[in-house]
Amino acid sequence: MTNLCDNISVNAQGHLCFAGQDTVLLAREYGTPLYLMDEARIRQNCRVYQTALREQFGGKAGALFASKACSFKQIYRIMEEEEMGIDVVSCGEIYTAKAAGFPMAKAFFHGNCKTDADIAYAMDAGVGYFVVDNADELQAIDREAAKRGVLQRILLRLTPGIDSHTYEAVNTGKVDSKFGAAIETGQAEELTAVALQEKNLKLCGFHCHVGSSVFAEDVFERAAVIMLTFIAEIKEKYGYLAEILNLGGGYGVRYTESDPTIDISKKIADVAAAVKAACAELKIERPFICLEPGRSIVADAGMTLYTVGSTKEIPGFKNYVAVDGGMTDNPRFALYRSRYTCFLANKASEPADFSCSVVGRCCESGDILQENVSIPRPKRGDMIAVCTTGAYNFSMSSEYNRIPRPPVVMLRKEGNRIAVRRQTFEDIAARDNSWDT
Amino acid sequence: MTNLCDNISVNAQGHLCFAGQDTVLLAREYGTPLYLMDEARIRQNCRVYQTALREQFGGKAGALFASKACSFKQIYRIMEEEEMGIDVVSCGEIYTAKAAGFPMAKAFFHGNCKTDADIAYAMDAGVGYFVVDNADELQAIDREAAKRGVLQRILLRLTPGIDSHTYEAVNTGKVDSKFGAAIETGQAEELTAVALQEKNLKLCGFHCHVGSSVFAEDVFERAAVIMLTFIAEIKEKYGYLAEILNLGGGYGVRYTESDPTIDISKKIADVAAAVKAACAELKIERPFICLEPGRSIVADAGMTLYTVGSTKEIPGFKNYVAVDGGMTDNPRFALYRSRYTCFLANKASEPADFSCSVVGRCCESGDILQENVSIPRPKRGDMIAVCTTGAYNFSMSSEYNRIPRPPVVMLRKEGNRIAVRRQTFEDIAARDNSWDT
Repeated sequence: MTNLCDNISVNAQGHLCFAGQDTVLLAREYGTPLYLMDEARIRQNCRVYQTALREQFGGKAGALFASKACSFKQIYRIMEEEEMGIDVVSCGEIYTAKAAGFPMAKAFFHGNCKTDADIAYAMDAGVGYFVVDNADELQAIDREAAKRGVLQRILLRLTPGIDSHTYEAVNTGKVDSKFGAAIETGQAEELTAVALQEKNLKLCGFHCHVGSSVFAEDVFERAAVIMLTFIAEIKEKYGYLAEILNLGGGYGVRYTESDPTIDISKKIADVAAAVKAACAELKIERPFICLEPGRSIVADAGMTLYTVGSTKEIPGFKNYVAVDGGMTDNPRFALYRSRYTCFLANKASEPADFSCSVVGRCCESGDILQENVSIPRPKRGDMIAVCTTGAYNFSMSSEYNRIPRPPVVMLRKEGNRIAVRRQTFEDIAARDNSWDT
Repeated sequence: MTNLCDNISVNAQGHLCFAGQDTVLLAREYGTPLYLMDEARIRQNCRVYQTALREQFGGKAGALFASKACSFKQIYRIMEEEEMGIDVVSCGEIYTAKAAGFPMAKAFFHGNCKTDADIAYAMDAGVGYFVVDNADELQAIDREAAKRGVLQRILLRLTPGIDSHTYEAVNTGKVDSKFGAAIETGQAEELTAVALQEKNLKLCGFHCHVGSSVFAEDVFERAAVIMLTFIAEIKEKYGYLAEILNLGGGYGVRYTESDPTIDISKKIADVAAAVKAACAELKIERPFICLEPGRSIVADAGMTLYTVGSTKEIPGFKNYVAVDGGMTDNPRFALYRSRYTCFLANKASEPADFSCSVVGRCCESGDILQENVSIPRPKRGDMIAVCTTGAYNFSMSSEYNRIPRPPVVMLRKEGNRIAVRRQTFEDIAARDNSWDT
């Protein structure tokens, strides 16, 4: 019924199925709103990256899961089992990964504003690599390493001056970023020179991140060439050869049937060809290549189920279907007007002839999940499914209006697991002090 | 140094003060990021409404605090002491208000998607009034009331067809809303007719909400006239006279020095004049008038303090100052490009000659607190204050990137109170199940 992702189907009762399980039964068992995740799909997505990297680069490449896309304890356990590294951006993510038993030597600590306390925390947690954003931070990391008598491995975050969305090699746009040091302005080289002199830091290489939801043809190839050219120049000038080149994230995913399909294996082969050609031309040894997929690992492994509260037809204007969740569990339409595919999960075989906006329950007119949706006309009590919600939904969720957050149920053939339990009112108010404290 | 709000000043050390207290000392005591709230200012804002309503309407008017702007236990206690009613939009807010001991008969339960479970919860909590959004909900409330053998008081939410921002009496825009029933389409009358027949519901009147951050001249007056005209028509046709007219929120506040100052007392006098004139002309008894201020009660009672992590100058482009918070504690720039006023709190007397974007610590390029800020050039460890953050900051906050949420410290002459304690990593991961559960 849809070619969005092969983990979505419809059964004989006309119920939408996800990961082979009837969503109506899942909603009945766990309640709504409900985040579902398809564990097999997460693992499969990891393996696509790992297999392609191994084939293209031999042992000299690896994928790190960008855990900001979806961070909770069990996800790190899956990443460990799939032999992924991880990209963490805060001590909260470090805490979670460590609590899940993830081997922290395989963690790369990102972020543009690491406090002294963060740096100390991450070092004590045994984080493998700090991805250093700026000179202030570089010095703070050196100081904390000195205190502990350790040689901390670092990468430097650079901005290669590529705008992934306009599909042009711009020397404006992406240089103007809150992240990293620009190659073009000479600041990347300055930062490198300082890093090479710090006694308690071991510079292992460089990182860049050209954008999110990348569909454009050769963004990573162009980034790789710019970064490798920089690496060659640094080798020439400073006699330092980078061991690691981390090309960051992140390939786009299909939120709707009209989005293109990205063949990750093919993309990685293209990147590998560009990297090998550039290294040969620049006469440098090929560094270890890292990629940091987040969205493309978890997005299509997620689905959110809601119950309809009301259907409103405003003659001459439009129709609204209100559900028991919204921008609290998925703020992406409110933030970016992100597109999603919706189904009426308990009547998925009926004609989708009712055009409407699917809106949330927050007291906010911007609380919209999706506009211009075509589904069968819903009634109170029917179920709406929003697809491809595995990335940046749970992780960006809030308790606005003090609405409890949904649980995350990990769908597995061996038996489902509640990865994150439903939030209670008591949880929401747990940090509120009463009057006399 | 600023005329933004009279609770902001600078002391002899050049430190920014809020509610008469040195923000540098507050940051040292409580850490950053840090939400500050000025309790006296909250109370003063409540009293402006209450005094003006009493003067204009005698006993026949009242203000309800729109608690979605800022919901935690102590705020409801303050509202109780100030004899305010409250507007609640979820069971989470009802739970919090009740836990704080607020008298729930003075609560109005809003929202466009109340589930059967919500309705049952609110009824059992003794919520005074349900503000009914649609016919589905009306019937569900009637059923729950029948089960309990109670006569539930309700208002109906109507859309008067006013767009508060374009300053035009439009018969398009605001009719197209996810909220309520439109007067213009006849749906408001239909809903009223149904409500009058439900056996377990007592229709007490009508509610409308014309918008948020209203500065335009006579928006509430025009809304009042439309609503009163509807009330008169319903009286004529159905013999039913509404006892309550709830005109909703919400007046705008000054986020920057260039925003106009709204004289709430004067505005309420204007609304009162319009209401009285309309009632006289329509020959109806004046209903009890409710207003629902949220932002104008708490916004200027709030300030957020941050510590600077780095200052980045990109030659030919712009400057970035990164702080230890961001869209997680204040998503309003990311959502609406909201304007705010920033100060370098520990050097508030120095020349503000450094132009920059103040950005957050999230791994997201849209994580910006404010653009085009002029402050003294900051160094790592300096302190940034963002003003007027009392509304829709704490309440809209998230744990994106697993960044812990700041505490809320209530500043009081009698001794400060931690209204909400700082979130810990353990709190953030508290709902995560480990592998073997």
